[in-house]
Amino acid sequence: MKMPIFVDMKERKLIFVTNDDGYTSNGFRCAVELARRLGDVVAVAPESSQSGKSQSITIYEPLFLREHRKEEGLELYSLSGTPVDCVKFAFDHLMEGRKVDLVLSGINHGSNSAVNVLYSGTMGAAIEGAFYGCPSIGLSLTSHDESADLTAAVQYGELLARKVLEGALQMPLCLNVNVPDRPVEQIAGMKFCRQTHGFWREVFHEYTDPHERRYYWMRGAFYNAEPDAADTDEYALAHGYVSVVPVQTDMTDYRQLTALQENITL
Amino acid sequence: MKMPIFVDMKERKLIFVTNDDGYTSNGFRCAVELARRLGDVVAVAPESSQSGKSQSITIYEPLFLREHRKEEGLELYSLSGTPVDCVKFAFDHLMEGRKVDLVLSGINHGSNSAVNVLYSGTMGAAIEGAFYGCPSIGLSLTSHDESADLTAAVQYGELLARKVLEGALQMPLCLNVNVPDRPVEQIAGMKFCRQTHGFWREVFHEYTDPHERRYYWMRGAFYNAEPDAADTDEYALAHGYVSVVPVQTDMTDYRQLTALQENITL
Repeated sequence: MKMPIFVDMKERKLIFVTNDDGYTSNGFRCAVELARRLGDVVAVAPESSQSGKSQSITIYEPLFLREHRKEEGLELYSLSGTPVDCVKFAFDHLMEGRKVDLVLSGINHGSNSAVNVLYSGTMGAAIEGAFYGCPSIGLSLTSHDESADLTAAVQYGELLARKVLEGALQMPLCLNVNVPDRPVEQIAGMKFCRQTHGFWREVFHEYTDPHERRYYWMRGAFYNAEPDAADTDEYALAHGYVSVVPVQTDMTDYRQLTALQENITL
Repeated sequence: MKMPIFVDMKERKLIFVTNDDGYTSNGFRCAVELARRLGDVVAVAPESSQSGKSQSITIYEPLFLREHRKEEGLELYSLSGTPVDCVKFAFDHLMEGRKVDLVLSGINHGSNSAVNVLYSGTMGAAIEGAFYGCPSIGLSLTSHDESADLTAAVQYGELLARKVLEGALQMPLCLNVNVPDRPVEQIAGMKFCRQTHGFWREVFHEYTDPHERRYYWMRGAFYNAEPDAADTDEYALAHGYVSVVPVQTDMTDYRQLTALQENITL
């Protein structure tokens, strides 16, 4: 067992907050409030909704920044890019040289469990935070309702964030935290689990615009490839638990790599 | 050793082709030509450049399709979305019910080695193809020059694609193939390897527009965290090899998961 590093909690912490629903979202507002109870806050959220933007970066377009608040302990901005742009801009420009103690991405309106981790802008930002050597938490509620009750997400997110800031968890650390959409007193607890295997299948709804051009709108459904696996995030959520999946970024398929190296001559 | 499945190569194959540089790119044209030598082709590429779009999906905007060619053995379209949208639209709408033998994404202008796999629209599409149970290849050249010589990329891509279509490689299969930018006779060979650990750091260049608004443009540099590791894709490329990294989509950090389960009480 690796011993946790001693951290002086009297020292003022710096928390970076972002999200993917945009800086006006209720979830972002709650995340900033949560973070302010833990330390100083620099927050940069996308100017507009960036749901499903994954690890996207803006290469061939300019980025515009807007300052909304700048006071003791709180700086609040919006950026015309993706969640990952926000992280990069904050770490490599706005906060350059400052030590960041935690990246908090969210609170996302909608689940980022299972394979959603790959499509999620919220998790894209959390993963990017980890690339800057910073512990990071992506926090999501399993409801797309913009006015959903975020009490449970705030409470469990804060519990985890405090553990991280106390140095109780090993580094590197990137957590994908999903909170079931139910009253806080009905939450069964919190479970560390693995990402569920599964995939999405889409239906493309057809429409015709006033100029007689046909267009399509995608709407999908998630298929859980292992609904009975009790160690997965989907299972935990279905049973009323907050799911916590630690995330890493090596996509190598090592089993396939061994098979290729042993069996294939090029 | 798992034996390869016998596949009748006389049976006409169906290859799906997409990319992230858009349907007018030279790399896409070469990928379509390559695929036509292997079977029937359905190709849907983004209407515009989608570099760095990762696994992005278009949720809150409509998608427009344009048909460019429809003849025996070749259907060619562009879609106003991301590379992953192209895959989803093709599998769940255009080709619904047809058996696809291979997804080929590329040929990308620019390397998708190392951590680039996470930001890459080309690899986003290849990964999405694998979610449809289809073997997939993301093929990239380590040059951003739109007019770069693609001979080596085509040659090695075709070699691998034939191996896949012959059933020589185990499923599930998603390959991240990167070809060094050099004449084909100077390529040292092909290596199966793992994703290099590393990260990007950005510089944000500041400009002022004619309306006196300040804006930023991002330009980054990749830092290889393990330049001497001979089993990595970056090492292979630096030594003149084509790198082939098998990719999987379980992002769970199992080492961290065990540590959390053993040491943290919630």
